[in-house]
Amino acid sequence: MGTTPERRRTRDAQRRLRERGADALVLFPSPNLRYTTGFDEEPSERHLLAFLPAEGDPTLLVPELYDEQVRRESWIEDVRTWADADDPTARVAGIVTELDLDGGHLLVDDTMHARFTQDLRAAAPDATFGLASEILAPLRVRKDETERDALRRAAAVADAVVDDLRALGPEVVGWTERELATEVADRLAAHGGTGVSFEVIAGSGPNGAMPHHTHGDREIQAGEPVVLDFGTWVDGYPSDQTRTLVFDGEPSERVREAHDVVRRAQQAGVDAVEPGVTAGAVDAAAREVIADAGYGDAFLHRTGHGVGLEVHEEPYLVAGSERELEPGMVFSVEPGVYLEGEFGVRIEDLVIVTEDGAERLNETDRGCL
Amino acid sequence: MGTTPERRRTRDAQRRLRERGADALVLFPSPNLRYTTGFDEEPSERHLLAFLPAEGDPTLLVPELYDEQVRRESWIEDVRTWADADDPTARVAGIVTELDLDGGHLLVDDTMHARFTQDLRAAAPDATFGLASEILAPLRVRKDETERDALRRAAAVADAVVDDLRALGPEVVGWTERELATEVADRLAAHGGTGVSFEVIAGSGPNGAMPHHTHGDREIQAGEPVVLDFGTWVDGYPSDQTRTLVFDGEPSERVREAHDVVRRAQQAGVDAVEPGVTAGAVDAAAREVIADAGYGDAFLHRTGHGVGLEVHEEPYLVAGSERELEPGMVFSVEPGVYLEGEFGVRIEDLVIVTEDGAERLNETDRGCL
Repeated sequence: MGTTPERRRTRDAQRRLRERGADALVLFPSPNLRYTTGFDEEPSERHLLAFLPAEGDPTLLVPELYDEQVRRESWIEDVRTWADADDPTARVAGIVTELDLDGGHLLVDDTMHARFTQDLRAAAPDATFGLASEILAPLRVRKDETERDALRRAAAVADAVVDDLRALGPEVVGWTERELATEVADRLAAHGGTGVSFEVIAGSGPNGAMPHHTHGDREIQAGEPVVLDFGTWVDGYPSDQTRTLVFDGEPSERVREAHDVVRRAQQAGVDAVEPGVTAGAVDAAAREVIADAGYGDAFLHRTGHGVGLEVHEEPYLVAGSERELEPGMVFSVEPGVYLEGEFGVRIEDLVIVTEDGAERLNETDRGCL
Repeated sequence: MGTTPERRRTRDAQRRLRERGADALVLFPSPNLRYTTGFDEEPSERHLLAFLPAEGDPTLLVPELYDEQVRRESWIEDVRTWADADDPTARVAGIVTELDLDGGHLLVDDTMHARFTQDLRAAAPDATFGLASEILAPLRVRKDETERDALRRAAAVADAVVDDLRALGPEVVGWTERELATEVADRLAAHGGTGVSFEVIAGSGPNGAMPHHTHGDREIQAGEPVVLDFGTWVDGYPSDQTRTLVFDGEPSERVREAHDVVRRAQQAGVDAVEPGVTAGAVDAAAREVIADAGYGDAFLHRTGHGVGLEVHEEPYLVAGSERELEPGMVFSVEPGVYLEGEFGVRIEDLVIVTEDGAERLNETDRGCL
């Protein structure tokens, strides 16, 4: 069998395990599992665990009905299956004994459910525990060319939909947010994306002031800004960008001002990106523009988040973060201003950290008109 | 403030905590959180925890940007927010100290992510841990009339789509599974459902033999069975049923026979349902029909699963389960036969356990033609 990216990543992870004196990664259905094994599944109530020891071959424990899928998707050869009539907890305990993991230091998947971590702790009462991200996050945070290419293509699909929406203009007035969200999803698929990478946000007027409002039955009105934040998947990698558009009519002076502030803040954030700069410094660069304009209290969230196999992953661009940017990192730069009861404005692009600056993945017009 | 269902459920849960000598439930974004607080969110990398002590009022710790949403959706008054620049781990530790939980017995949400359970263990090193389902599952498993009504309406929406598909008949031949899945999703919405309750399964020919295959680019052919398993949400409750249809042409004798066996097995399973019977006995009733017909090795999974706020929840109809059925339980009865490389057949209805038997929620024709 040739060397797959997943096999290389597992070898890298095992080297890091040995360097840290840790004994195994224990994963469950997650992006970490997909990154290392190729096996792509959702968490369920059924025990599905991967044991990646510091030395030797990994072992997968999967429900019997995933047997065919796991052999098709993954390079792992040691696949143990359990049937619904078996006791999966006993199978976990058996593997822990076989791999001599009790008393060791185990790094469990950050999103592993408590029902499985409690089983693992019962099977290995003398083990100590940490999180898999301690060693996988530094690997995953620097995207290789294959990953960057997928992210560029996902961004291009979303950009095409932004252009479509801008072209629709006045036609959108009178649609509900829900109708607009459906239109966005349909167009993402039509431009080659797979599904949506998160629920489409179409926050019109005062709904735009709730940063995590998605879409509802409110009708879009002329003159008001609509926060449009959406993305799709291309080859397993997502897009995520935001534009705040006024579909028809004249925005008020207050809307224009807030939009201009956010746009300048977003540019300042992108301009600050280069290797060696801290994530906190990028946050500060964007935040300063908003604070100087008197909207500091209305910028409710961090400036950005990493994007890769997950839509939200490291690095996080948060105030005070000392995390230094490295070439190959990909993250959003997305300052916003949220005026409760009035409207919201957010502008977001994804960027790749290059050897000497940033490559912006989203290049559609950032204006509100 | 009046007594909401969520407030009543919290009081019931607190009574059960005291009865068991446990000190608190610690929840995070999950159906358990929604069941007790009304707050409906997805897990993220941000700390969002609810502490429901055995006595006194619950405390919610939420990221600042959810503040407005949580106050709108939840009855909880003690809501603490944290900003991206704060250290949420320290906030968790503060609440643990304030509620005097270290040294106590804490029941954590079954799906709580390891990154949060590890924080909680660090903040309460002398606590012992169990799972929230120990006390919430027995409450959630018996659906009240409001819940049963939503489940009936969700089933009716899915049934209407099954009828639509059967009426399409030969028109479907030549479509890809993906096109058929899109048609299903569109019709679920048109009949009043919200989204899909899981990825639509349209397993044609040999793809139907992989129980967790969803849909791909294979074209549907005349004479072959297509496993159609899908559902939608109505007022927060899902539907989930399966029919296996031949859209055009004559099924082979082997398909007819397997379909007939599964249909009789499904009927035997439903017939076995009444209060006091074990979940294992229902599984056995369906399994026996399939084994007697010589297909025992081709029935790869359990006979059914509970359905409520989650598509998969207790009770599980699995071989050997001693769990006794109670009035108000809702679950699927879904035996299947999977012939690798050939085809699959599954037939599934949801049932409510009544005082003396079962109410079937799905009543569309169970034949393959």
